[in-house]
Amino acid sequence: MHKILIANRGEIAVRIIRACHEIGLRTVAVYSTVDREALHVKMADQAVCIGPANPQASYLNQTNIIEAARRTGADAIHPGYGFLSENAEFAKLCETQGITFIGPHSETIALLGDKARAREVMQNANVPVIPGSAEGFTELGTALYQANEIGYPVMLKAAAGGGGKGMRLIHSEAQLKHEFTMAQGEAQKAFGNPEMYLEKFIVRPRHIEVQILADSFGNTVSLGERDCSLQQYHQKVMEEAPSAIDHKTRYEMLSTARRAAKALNFLGAGTIEFLYAGPSQFYFMEMNTRIQVEHPITEFITGVDLVRGQLRIAAGMALGISQEKVTLNGYALECRITATVPGTVKGLHLPGGNGVRVDTALYQGYQVPANYDALLAKIITYAPTREIAVKKMQVAIDETVIEGVGTNLDFLYRLLNNQDVLDNKFDIEFIDRLIKEDAHD
Amino acid sequence: MHKILIANRGEIAVRIIRACHEIGLRTVAVYSTVDREALHVKMADQAVCIGPANPQASYLNQTNIIEAARRTGADAIHPGYGFLSENAEFAKLCETQGITFIGPHSETIALLGDKARAREVMQNANVPVIPGSAEGFTELGTALYQANEIGYPVMLKAAAGGGGKGMRLIHSEAQLKHEFTMAQGEAQKAFGNPEMYLEKFIVRPRHIEVQILADSFGNTVSLGERDCSLQQYHQKVMEEAPSAIDHKTRYEMLSTARRAAKALNFLGAGTIEFLYAGPSQFYFMEMNTRIQVEHPITEFITGVDLVRGQLRIAAGMALGISQEKVTLNGYALECRITATVPGTVKGLHLPGGNGVRVDTALYQGYQVPANYDALLAKIITYAPTREIAVKKMQVAIDETVIEGVGTNLDFLYRLLNNQDVLDNKFDIEFIDRLIKEDAHD
Repeated sequence: MHKILIANRGEIAVRIIRACHEIGLRTVAVYSTVDREALHVKMADQAVCIGPANPQASYLNQTNIIEAARRTGADAIHPGYGFLSENAEFAKLCETQGITFIGPHSETIALLGDKARAREVMQNANVPVIPGSAEGFTELGTALYQANEIGYPVMLKAAAGGGGKGMRLIHSEAQLKHEFTMAQGEAQKAFGNPEMYLEKFIVRPRHIEVQILADSFGNTVSLGERDCSLQQYHQKVMEEAPSAIDHKTRYEMLSTARRAAKALNFLGAGTIEFLYAGPSQFYFMEMNTRIQVEHPITEFITGVDLVRGQLRIAAGMALGISQEKVTLNGYALECRITATVPGTVKGLHLPGGNGVRVDTALYQGYQVPANYDALLAKIITYAPTREIAVKKMQVAIDETVIEGVGTNLDFLYRLLNNQDVLDNKFDIEFIDRLIKEDAHD
Repeated sequence: MHKILIANRGEIAVRIIRACHEIGLRTVAVYSTVDREALHVKMADQAVCIGPANPQASYLNQTNIIEAARRTGADAIHPGYGFLSENAEFAKLCETQGITFIGPHSETIALLGDKARAREVMQNANVPVIPGSAEGFTELGTALYQANEIGYPVMLKAAAGGGGKGMRLIHSEAQLKHEFTMAQGEAQKAFGNPEMYLEKFIVRPRHIEVQILADSFGNTVSLGERDCSLQQYHQKVMEEAPSAIDHKTRYEMLSTARRAAKALNFLGAGTIEFLYAGPSQFYFMEMNTRIQVEHPITEFITGVDLVRGQLRIAAGMALGISQEKVTLNGYALECRITATVPGTVKGLHLPGGNGVRVDTALYQGYQVPANYDALLAKIITYAPTREIAVKKMQVAIDETVIEGVGTNLDFLYRLLNNQDVLDNKFDIEFIDRLIKEDAHD
């Protein structure tokens, strides 16, 4: 592996280029026509235009990307996150073209893209999944029996479709008896199918995920967990590591995650996402088979460079980390600064100093295109305690100036001063409730 | 302690303001008329102009600074480094005015300012100082006897003065016999005094210094050492922690440094500087009683926030760190980016990402005044090994863009690619030799 093509843009392309240069690998940036002046283009050793602004025509254009790799002699492709990073077809295309895809085998990606198959593999590996009906049913008696098995509250759903039609949150046997027929009627009307199924309803869960690195020598390590519950419309806003779970649950969750990764013959950097309901109660949601936006908080608390890890593994090297040597030190927080209104960066001041990391592709004069992800910068703070890490983040966010582009900085500042956030008391619906309350004011 | 006046400017003022805000202390910046638009002025809660550009009239103007503290109700002053930070008179003035001087007692500063007294205290505390004559002498016989005691090579000097008059580097008894009379004649002619003295000549030493934090409860901890041998005309250019010394020497040096600090009843953050000649051979040079420019590398390898430590100690709190708990992890490097030609920052891109810390007061559009220290920014890298930390620094320096101001970036890049630097083989004259070789090319 000598030359890496980075099939991405923005801060993650910059992150990957730095990691490559640090180990002496040459880099090729790809860019769409609106990204001609982007930082990743300036930083890479070479850059190739792969199409117009529309991501379908450029960053998702498999043919053009492979062609760019050919033309520049790149022998590996790092897909970053988003775009083609979890596209099994693209991974397969790389494999057949003799280009190293920096990620797991295409079959692993394909398997994880099929939710039912993934669930089955997890259950076989003794990884807890959200309890629910194995298949659809039509009778109230079955519903009552299964609901007792699963435990209330349960979510009653139409087996044939989503969108809330036929869906009921059920708290008791009495309520199930009372609402089953009406829900089934809705399902029949909406989908032409009266089949129903039940799923355990997790009350105010947290989103907690485990970082995995696995090499081709059978070494699979977990690198602690991250709490990513602070989400707005399912988009993560602020993440932290480690989470507030107890030691016993952490031990169980981390070993479960390793078991899951091993069951998948997973290779590279990946994340097992769990819904956390309470001590020792957590359920597999999905596995991401790529580097995550929030990976820096894990890098801070473990001291392990995850992108370097990906590169080592892809080059066929051993990870060089054993599970026993992984220790979690201190607390790290990440805030995602996103654009609410695109524009040109007229003024820019990013924080720095002790325990502050910034990952961004911004520079003064840069025109933020409206065509892509709204992420402008990630501010990461690190300190011996959560309290200090939060304080550091308050100061860092307060200090940040981005002129000419609308941002969520005010919202982040508010979040960092919210008493529940300070007390580490929140769940995945916390921000959505906060915004709803605002609307009612 | 509620409100801190920062009697400094530039990156260190920014560093201190951040640390204050992180623990909820309010801040007062002071500035000279050319620093009206400086970053530290923008970041502090309040700012007071203390005089014109000439530092004597502003940043060294004790009356104006005390007056600014009075007017703003600041109950403590952080002097940073340089300027008034090691001025015993200013520390004393703060004490008499009932303002907390964030540093040791004025008497400690005064004592360390008197090199002969400091040497005496160190010798009494069994801290090795550079071996030399206790007093001047006039006879060759005394010189021969003392030189044997000290061990060759020795430096023969005029007791009455410096400037190279009467000075000889002596490698052997034969040479001493041959040159003594002529050197003494020079001394007599230059200073009207034939008294001579001898000092051990340390061949190609390293500059290695130990970070100390000491609270008012008698807790004095050493936080590892830094190698600051890479100096140009006695100005540090690149520093690293830990140094290349062996474990046994480290243990000896760190415990010696603690003994030295305790002998001085030292309080706050300070640095004991040693000349290192070889395993177990090191000699006290001086103690700095303030935060050092290169303190971030120690923060990286120990995880201890030194400025926060200063603030805690000044507030009369216990340090909260015991020597047994101090561990040194990884390798940190600092490069000092300095201005060679002042100007206005037209374009600015600073590095970031994993293991990269930037401390600076630069921003795009900032006009670098010619009146002060040339330091523009400190780039600090941190990694599990020295090799990776150096690689990271190469990438970080390569990435840095500062347009409109002349800088030493090219020289730093060259230094980071010099084989001796890569091999950690250098001493305090390394850079000066490098530059001299250039001149001969």
